[in-house]
Amino acid sequence: MAQAAMEKELQVQYYNMSEQDLDRVFRLPNTTYIGGNETVLPLREIIKRLQHVYCRSIGVEFMFINNLQQADWIRRKFETPGIMQFGSEERRMLMARLIRSTRFEEFLARKWSSEKRFGLEGCEVLIPAMKTIIDSSSAAGVDSFIIGMPHRGRLNVLANVCRKPLEKIICQFDSKLEAADEGSGDVKYHLGMSHERVNRVTNKYIKIAVVANPSHLEAVDTVVQGKARAEMFYRGDTDGKKVMPMLIHGDAAFSGQGIVYECLHLSDLPAFTTHGTVHIVVNNQIGFTTDPRSSRSSPYCTDVARVVNAPIFHVNADDPEAVIYVCKVASEWRETFGKDVVIDLVCYRRFGHNEIDEPMFTQPLMYKKIAKQPTVLAKYAEYLINNGVVTQQEYEEEISKYDKICEESYSLAKKETAVSNIDWLDSPWSGFFEGRNPMEMPTTGVHEETLQHIGKVFSTPPEDFVIHGGLKRVLKGRANMVAERQADWALGEAFAFGSLLKEGIHVRLSGQDVERGTFSHRHHVLHHQNIDKKTTIPLNNLYPDQAPYTVCNSSLSEYGVLGFEVGFSITNPNALVIWEAQFGDFANTAQCIIDQFISSGQAKWVRQSGLVMLLPHGFEGMGPEHSSARLERFLQMSNDDPDYFPV
Amino acid sequence: MAQAAMEKELQVQYYNMSEQDLDRVFRLPNTTYIGGNETVLPLREIIKRLQHVYCRSIGVEFMFINNLQQADWIRRKFETPGIMQFGSEERRMLMARLIRSTRFEEFLARKWSSEKRFGLEGCEVLIPAMKTIIDSSSAAGVDSFIIGMPHRGRLNVLANVCRKPLEKIICQFDSKLEAADEGSGDVKYHLGMSHERVNRVTNKYIKIAVVANPSHLEAVDTVVQGKARAEMFYRGDTDGKKVMPMLIHGDAAFSGQGIVYECLHLSDLPAFTTHGTVHIVVNNQIGFTTDPRSSRSSPYCTDVARVVNAPIFHVNADDPEAVIYVCKVASEWRETFGKDVVIDLVCYRRFGHNEIDEPMFTQPLMYKKIAKQPTVLAKYAEYLINNGVVTQQEYEEEISKYDKICEESYSLAKKETAVSNIDWLDSPWSGFFEGRNPMEMPTTGVHEETLQHIGKVFSTPPEDFVIHGGLKRVLKGRANMVAERQADWALGEAFAFGSLLKEGIHVRLSGQDVERGTFSHRHHVLHHQNIDKKTTIPLNNLYPDQAPYTVCNSSLSEYGVLGFEVGFSITNPNALVIWEAQFGDFANTAQCIIDQFISSGQAKWVRQSGLVMLLPHGFEGMGPEHSSARLERFLQMSNDDPDYFPV
Repeated sequence: MAQAAMEKELQVQYYNMSEQDLDRVFRLPNTTYIGGNETVLPLREIIKRLQHVYCRSIGVEFMFINNLQQADWIRRKFETPGIMQFGSEERRMLMARLIRSTRFEEFLARKWSSEKRFGLEGCEVLIPAMKTIIDSSSAAGVDSFIIGMPHRGRLNVLANVCRKPLEKIICQFDSKLEAADEGSGDVKYHLGMSHERVNRVTNKYIKIAVVANPSHLEAVDTVVQGKARAEMFYRGDTDGKKVMPMLIHGDAAFSGQGIVYECLHLSDLPAFTTHGTVHIVVNNQIGFTTDPRSSRSSPYCTDVARVVNAPIFHVNADDPEAVIYVCKVASEWRETFGKDVVIDLVCYRRFGHNEIDEPMFTQPLMYKKIAKQPTVLAKYAEYLINNGVVTQQEYEEEISKYDKICEESYSLAKKETAVSNIDWLDSPWSGFFEGRNPMEMPTTGVHEETLQHIGKVFSTPPEDFVIHGGLKRVLKGRANMVAERQADWALGEAFAFGSLLKEGIHVRLSGQDVERGTFSHRHHVLHHQNIDKKTTIPLNNLYPDQAPYTVCNSSLSEYGVLGFEVGFSITNPNALVIWEAQFGDFANTAQCIIDQFISSGQAKWVRQSGLVMLLPHGFEGMGPEHSSARLERFLQMSNDDPDYFPV
Repeated sequence: MAQAAMEKELQVQYYNMSEQDLDRVFRLPNTTYIGGNETVLPLREIIKRLQHVYCRSIGVEFMFINNLQQADWIRRKFETPGIMQFGSEERRMLMARLIRSTRFEEFLARKWSSEKRFGLEGCEVLIPAMKTIIDSSSAAGVDSFIIGMPHRGRLNVLANVCRKPLEKIICQFDSKLEAADEGSGDVKYHLGMSHERVNRVTNKYIKIAVVANPSHLEAVDTVVQGKARAEMFYRGDTDGKKVMPMLIHGDAAFSGQGIVYECLHLSDLPAFTTHGTVHIVVNNQIGFTTDPRSSRSSPYCTDVARVVNAPIFHVNADDPEAVIYVCKVASEWRETFGKDVVIDLVCYRRFGHNEIDEPMFTQPLMYKKIAKQPTVLAKYAEYLINNGVVTQQEYEEEISKYDKICEESYSLAKKETAVSNIDWLDSPWSGFFEGRNPMEMPTTGVHEETLQHIGKVFSTPPEDFVIHGGLKRVLKGRANMVAERQADWALGEAFAFGSLLKEGIHVRLSGQDVERGTFSHRHHVLHHQNIDKKTTIPLNNLYPDQAPYTVCNSSLSEYGVLGFEVGFSITNPNALVIWEAQFGDFANTAQCIIDQFISSGQAKWVRQSGLVMLLPHGFEGMGPEHSSARLERFLQMSNDDPDYFPV
């Protein structure tokens, strides 16, 4: 680091010290670990060690974290002398993974030179980075990884992180097959997948799902969270030790899209937390053609993570060992604290926004430099060869080995005659469709005594539980209705939920103020009037063997929360998942989720969801406010009627 | 502050010091101002002074700001001994303002006891707070304030901050008049207004606009920014010294809605900055019925502001002098640094979400405490009377004076026979409609030589300006088309823009990558291939007396940026303001702006906008991605055809 570029506060002169003071010995405060076993060090050595830790390939951003234990943990992970060491075995594995990442793109580029593939060139290190996080977390007990990511590098991730069979990816470049899948010929950078395999490093069985996503950047973020949360819920993984979400972001989208902020603010809510997400930003230092100066108002694209006190590790993507180390720490952070963490992979994009775009039009000087930059693989292989870790021959053999795999898959791909939907499902519903006759309407009626029982529990205040006088009147009214075999909205809803719960169907109702209900009509959570935070949920006390009922007030978000519930709903078809808008007209803030995931999900990704949306509206506001949830729009988005022919 | 609740790191014992050490004298570092003229102080006194500054009614959050000059400025404003002093005159004015705020709500409650009014009770200090910011900024030269705010306290702000004549507000409670306005009977908490008056403190002329907003919380944020930016642009106010935006937020919305994050990330972008917004959070410590624990994943509702390194002042809304001091500092901060600042008014809501809602159902203990809480006015008046600043009689007289004003306005209101649209316009277009025949189609054709000239400039690379080889070919193609009297999209667009610029119409084109164009088709900004950041915009070199042409890449946001351009467009009808979506299908992320401001703005708020949206779409993605901008939805949202009658 050039001395000239240094802020004056980082120079010894600022502290009234001079060159001579550098040899004075100082006692180290207990807030640093740079001393190792030593408690005193000369100033010169202190500065040297701090520069070694903080002024090379890794920028550790954590000083804003308002928890000393957490800040201390991070310092120890980076400051302890010699902590960042790599053995030969690990280095060879890293090289092999870089080879896979690099040669995969080169292979595709060779075979389909004029096709867009949104390749990873310039950030090849993403593959070993993700694999390291999976290795570390798998070793700690996680066996299910739910991934959300944009276009760039997606095929490489499917091939080399998920290890989806290469021929299944390659055959998608065959236009005949592309058109033949039931999904309506969408680009291959959007489809999801779910794959189970043995992790070769930990020898443990793992499942990796990449969630299907539209072109709308970051829209998939909370869908991933909802899916992860659902898996945790149904597996009884109460602290996220088994299931883990991972989100890959682009730099400009991470700082541009409000959904990112909404997603982070769900991260620690009781009914929404996934106990920590590992975020990786593929930081191209450019958004399509736009410079950071025009795309954000803060120094780093990752500054949003400061909101929830998540540590942020900026790392030079051309230093693969630094990247791998940071990934291990990120994985341990989540394991230890159950909180989000961000890795900012500072890289570049070797080509344009896609392979047929010209970046020199708008960033000529940057791209002249990029053109001269050797690949991270070339640099790392040279370093390993020079240091005797591998020989030139071993390096070349490893390359040939992977190239051969690609070529063989290419031949296999030609024999593929059809694409199976199951290959592209992020959340397969095992057994759900088997033994069901789609043309047969199942019996849905329930016995009156069931409704009477539900109505009774729903309208009876618990003993010794002090409720509000007004609420007593509400419950009495409900009891009267039950007695008179009548029902209002709230009672009808309770009948519906209760009878499903009785049949073992989990019901989840989420949205703004849904526990009480916007119109004070629901009261599914009763609050003790004299004891703080003491509550009871009658619908969870219907039957001893009933399914659980989840009712949860959400944050004041529509886009983020609806996405979350979509993710929850796609995981288990045997559940009733409901999102209620505060007022129905607010649903348009979440329009992207409705348009891109719900109404078109099946056509695009063979993706079904049983989500129910409650959109209350009427002339509450005496005018256009809240008067319509725009139901005509939902009809308009319904699929074509094949029998309809306009005359 | 109870010692027991203190973190151990805040206790002297943690630093190996004891009670005896408290009398030892220490040298003060130059990072603190608590010493005043003294450079050494006993530890006991140091702690006492720090507690006096940081552990009473104000929580100053600024240590995350990565700019030492700014952090130092803030420390000086709070640590300097005796800096927060109030004279008798100022205290009397503060009391008078609290009286207006408090008695206004009481007056409405008395007259319309069963009507919702979203009153300010529990945060009456908002009125003196906003007035202080306006006073301070007016003294510094600002003469136009653009305000965005939600329902709560809106009528009070209109009455006592904007000083809209009371009778014009009161008459809106008359249902006959409410229905009679041209806007379609919408609630009075949504309409905007613009009012010009003399500021009584500074004796300067000021203009205050409150921008109309829908129920969609925070949706108005960037509309306010766009309107402020437009005013700055047309007035030549290049550093925001004349025009200033102010945004009022609710705590749950501020942490829940992603648009808040998008708004903050526009704050320092070259073509979007408004040189600092003063944000005030009316922090009820509750969102409708939802506790903070269920509505955010961070300690404060204001944590989003840390993203852009804005200082955050948490202040007890029951300590009016602390609030006023913080408002002065916030105003000075904006004046000094041209950056955003946040005031977190930690208050409560005396009643429910509105006056007919029961908060005891869900927050019984909190509301029992609130019921016992005297008003801030009662407490402050008592303090002033006890300290001899005012007498009991003066206090009561001041109250009677304002009550009388209210009663007189009530009588005047009864005489109001109609509501004039002009009373509710946030951006009146003075003179725009005068002398125009709405039935007459103006001539829009231009001479061919104009197009030839525009085409020539647009297709000629500037001399001595090195452009990319590929771009040379593009320009040559354009020159050929011009010669052959043909045009493609880009050339047609240039003809349209250029001919308007010639006629003095400002053109602003904003959106993701619009400078080059998503499809590399536009190239309105040419980049020198050898000199960093050297660019030229041919459409700004058409005629010496042409209007300016603004073309600007935006952040990767749709919701925020479209809102901004709507705000820009409503300010000046004599401009062409265009938002281009990266792909047309992305517009649905901004659906709320389209639905609530653009398509229904005129019906709701008599609000017109000449905004143009460019929504490119087609089968670029070979499937549903990018294939439709859902134009049918725009048609569906068009107004009723009065002649249409379905058979």
